[in-house]
Amino acid sequence: MKDFAGTPGTITGLFLRIAQFMFAAGAIASMASTSSFFNFTAFCYLIASMGLQVIWSLSLALMDAYALAKKIVIHNHILVSLFVIGDWVTTTLSLAAASASAGITVLYFHDIGGCTVVAECFKYQIAVAFAFLSWLTVFISSLIMFWLLAAS
Amino acid sequence: MKDFAGTPGTITGLFLRIAQFMFAAGAIASMASTSSFFNFTAFCYLIASMGLQVIWSLSLALMDAYALAKKIVIHNHILVSLFVIGDWVTTTLSLAAASASAGITVLYFHDIGGCTVVAECFKYQIAVAFAFLSWLTVFISSLIMFWLLAAS
Repeated sequence: MKDFAGTPGTITGLFLRIAQFMFAAGAIASMASTSSFFNFTAFCYLIASMGLQVIWSLSLALMDAYALAKKIVIHNHILVSLFVIGDWVTTTLSLAAASASAGITVLYFHDIGGCTVVAECFKYQIAVAFAFLSWLTVFISSLIMFWLLAAS
Repeated sequence: MKDFAGTPGTITGLFLRIAQFMFAAGAIASMASTSSFFNFTAFCYLIASMGLQVIWSLSLALMDAYALAKKIVIHNHILVSLFVIGDWVTTTLSLAAASASAGITVLYFHDIGGCTVVAECFKYQIAVAFAFLSWLTVFISSLIMFWLLAAS
């Protein structure tokens, strides 16, 4: 298998995983610190989806760090297939969660104009922004993984 | 370039494009027939996104039909790169639009429980279902195109 930027066991790959983890954790922290997120199914779904993202990205970041430290190559076909499936599932769930939450945020704070508690609204918007950033980084990872699998 | 099910200029490729077109057109028809969709940014975005999907899928369906009728192969590198970009853009926009609309549909008809006009609610739900089906078929197409490009 080819070895290019972003593949498992490279510095850029590790950097992408850490970025995904940080953004997803940021989205959870921002959303969970509001007092009324549990009234909205989409906001609960955002927390669940970002929770899955945190676990997945942290596991792969640790694996990348281990591979870098021990200088081993982790590009076997079965492992990359597993990464592709995991990355595509988390990409799809992240985008769906971010979009659903963005839809409700726009509905409340633009269509209805019902943003009475400014601090809460700001937290919802920050959570949605973090979720989109997390999706963007995991989307880049999933494209790299799929390319790696197809080109092998 | 390899020639497998779903690639441009094959019967399955044409079938996928027609399915995308039909589902996207169904979503637009169902959403546009409601009387209040223009009050919701996400529902307007769904119509715009599905409109783009209709244009893109119809163009590619016509190209596939032409290639099949004339028995020509349309697998050159530049054309497939163009299909990959177009498919990924429409996939992302479709999923985002479907999820945002689903978020609002769930908010109104489950979280708040404010479904007063049953016929309208049903149309929103049908539009969201069609949008997800359209996303699913264009997602399959985009994976096939990306694989075709990476494997060439």
